[in-house]
Amino acid sequence: MFRAGGQMLLAGTMPTGASEAFMPSQRPHVVILGGGFGGLETAKTLSRAEVDVTIIDRQNYHCFQPLLYQVATASLSPAEVAWPIRHILRLQKNATVFMTEVTAVDVAGKTIKTKSDSFPFDFLVIATGATNSYFGHDGWAAFAPGLKRIEDATRVRRNILSAFEEAELADDDNRRRQLLTFVIVGGGPTGVEMAGAIAEVARQTLKRDFRRIDPRSSRIVLIEAGPRLLPGFSAKHSAYAQRTLTAMGVEVMTATPVTQCDAGGVALEAGRIDAGSVVWAAGVMASPAAVWLAAEHDRAGRVVVRSDLSLPGHDTIFVIGDTAAVNDAGGRPVPGLAAAAKQMGQYVGRLIIARSAGRTLPPFRYRNQGALATIGRRAAIVEVGPIQLKGFIGWLFWSVVHIFFLIGLRNRLAVAITWLWSYITFQRGARLITEVPPPRI
Amino acid sequence: MFRAGGQMLLAGTMPTGASEAFMPSQRPHVVILGGGFGGLETAKTLSRAEVDVTIIDRQNYHCFQPLLYQVATASLSPAEVAWPIRHILRLQKNATVFMTEVTAVDVAGKTIKTKSDSFPFDFLVIATGATNSYFGHDGWAAFAPGLKRIEDATRVRRNILSAFEEAELADDDNRRRQLLTFVIVGGGPTGVEMAGAIAEVARQTLKRDFRRIDPRSSRIVLIEAGPRLLPGFSAKHSAYAQRTLTAMGVEVMTATPVTQCDAGGVALEAGRIDAGSVVWAAGVMASPAAVWLAAEHDRAGRVVVRSDLSLPGHDTIFVIGDTAAVNDAGGRPVPGLAAAAKQMGQYVGRLIIARSAGRTLPPFRYRNQGALATIGRRAAIVEVGPIQLKGFIGWLFWSVVHIFFLIGLRNRLAVAITWLWSYITFQRGARLITEVPPPRI
Repeated sequence: MFRAGGQMLLAGTMPTGASEAFMPSQRPHVVILGGGFGGLETAKTLSRAEVDVTIIDRQNYHCFQPLLYQVATASLSPAEVAWPIRHILRLQKNATVFMTEVTAVDVAGKTIKTKSDSFPFDFLVIATGATNSYFGHDGWAAFAPGLKRIEDATRVRRNILSAFEEAELADDDNRRRQLLTFVIVGGGPTGVEMAGAIAEVARQTLKRDFRRIDPRSSRIVLIEAGPRLLPGFSAKHSAYAQRTLTAMGVEVMTATPVTQCDAGGVALEAGRIDAGSVVWAAGVMASPAAVWLAAEHDRAGRVVVRSDLSLPGHDTIFVIGDTAAVNDAGGRPVPGLAAAAKQMGQYVGRLIIARSAGRTLPPFRYRNQGALATIGRRAAIVEVGPIQLKGFIGWLFWSVVHIFFLIGLRNRLAVAITWLWSYITFQRGARLITEVPPPRI
Repeated sequence: MFRAGGQMLLAGTMPTGASEAFMPSQRPHVVILGGGFGGLETAKTLSRAEVDVTIIDRQNYHCFQPLLYQVATASLSPAEVAWPIRHILRLQKNATVFMTEVTAVDVAGKTIKTKSDSFPFDFLVIATGATNSYFGHDGWAAFAPGLKRIEDATRVRRNILSAFEEAELADDDNRRRQLLTFVIVGGGPTGVEMAGAIAEVARQTLKRDFRRIDPRSSRIVLIEAGPRLLPGFSAKHSAYAQRTLTAMGVEVMTATPVTQCDAGGVALEAGRIDAGSVVWAAGVMASPAAVWLAAEHDRAGRVVVRSDLSLPGHDTIFVIGDTAAVNDAGGRPVPGLAAAAKQMGQYVGRLIIARSAGRTLPPFRYRNQGALATIGRRAAIVEVGPIQLKGFIGWLFWSVVHIFFLIGLRNRLAVAITWLWSYITFQRGARLITEVPPPRI
């Protein structure tokens, strides 16, 4: 089974206890936890280095999270925003990919423990990302799924589509009104994008599909605890986003904290909103790297790292992306964006190459590449250095940037065609309710 | 919520107990159970008739089952072979679609009971299809999923892709060999298609993606209890299929009944095959319509119907498609094909129109439109009347026919592009392991 030479590569990445047929190489072994933007960029930066790279992820795919909301609103299929990690790295001969789940990090013994096996490392890069945070109310997760994983997105899609199906069957006016009420908690880019997309589903995509309900009568409520939408953007663009959403029929509530999520909707300080579907876009929390490392972390669970992204006291352990607490040159926290994770991944890859050669690099420095947010199929907001766009021109810019970022030519082409088609027809091709829907109460 | 006029149609299809705002019409009410090939064709045939049509399905989509094997082998996404039933019928004003599950049929009271509500009918068309049959060994379903539903296909996809992932992690040679053994039970078109597609995944798609295993060394075994593959085709074409599969590296075993399926593989009379994935393509069983109707049925659970497809003693209840036991003019059973279900759906639709006008029609007569089966990306078998094709020409014919049959222009275009892309590159775009894989023993 294990043939040397030819296509097969005997990487020095074998688990402990592996067969004697494996000859460990003398090259440094870099273990990367997580195949997201940060982990993949680290691996790619090391592609020509004299190291052996092992990427461990509990899933077999890299997910393009910025487009998950389009899976959740039935525009794209999961396979259009996700690609097998091992396929992305298939031509990188020094990289080995394992699908398994990390259970512990033995810092002193320089070993990763997983559900399957243990992996010794010379360098470790932790890039395990973030999950949804319910600010201490973990029970809300059952009623208000977030949008961090493919399974989250298909669950939200099922909730939204099932609500219309159940409303068509409902006999009771109040029940019907509840089912046709959609609440999005959190007014950042994901919340704004979800609210706009759900409004389009209800007002356009489904308008001819029902006989007993009018999907256009749906109530879509976007709730933000802070004073304005899109706090990462300028106040001018926040106001534009709010105007645009309101014109699309979305109720925007700012300065409105949610005090409870349950099976029937959400509670606010001023009362309740009965809703059939609640989507959580309000906060994220780092993956448990700080627990694995017993390391200092901030309130969101992000590991406090040094200016070279290494763990204090451990020159060969790095934490990057959404899992790391890093500040920019101005002392502000680096935002949890794909671009930031990629910059960190590239930096750490270069640093490992330098260190292996006895050199070093200046500290990591975040370059702000700007921010984008889309509001339905007609408008987006772009703040990229001197480029300040809104409206349809912003939307075109947003589309081109996202298609450009998508990994893999096939998906770029397929997504472009899918978008063009749904732009022309208002239709959405992925309106499937798969798996058994959970019972509603 | 319920507005009269305009886009909204007040169908005479309201559940019992519905609001007084609904005015039932005096037109006959046709309830169709199932949105598969038969049910959809019935609905479409009634599109201009003076009847109200209600389609009830427990899923929100129509699934193009002949291509499910391509979902199971990661070529197509679920949304490329399935479409919302209500979207297909959105412009048919006399049709209302409900997503709910039938629990009973009250034949005397002419009412359908569902999990949500009850629906009275004047005419009933049962087109609920078939499920996998394990010939009395229902426990085998846990180890050998079939290919009847989207969820089956994504489960098979997860099993196959996870087997390669686990083999890459495995330390033990025997375990690795087991994981890289794929068994397909049943040598009909689905079994032949699955075996060919898995062989391509192992030999082509994945050949560069692993470091510790060589996917090309996978063992793929197609097991048929009868004397030859594809019993529905000519002996010449059976032999061609077997030769082609063998050349692709598939072990074909005919006259070999499977005596047991378990977590470790399958047992045969002559011994065991340890396998990581088993796919069931050996038999189907009708949905429980015969139980609902307390009707006479054959061994596969199909309801015995009269020559006009009605239930004996009930002129207004029809059973069609895979749920009905019907013979052709030569006394042979009509096969469980999409074309047969469509013919029956069209016949029953026309018959309902005739009956409503006080006329009738001659008995249903099945027109054999031939059969197709594909064996990987280079060969297919076509037996359509005088057209007898095999090899690449057969494959082209098969592709054109399938794209032509796909409902909805978008999917036709998207599937064509996806196929063309994967034909050129050998790549498969939907290689996602979603949902948590069940533990292997």
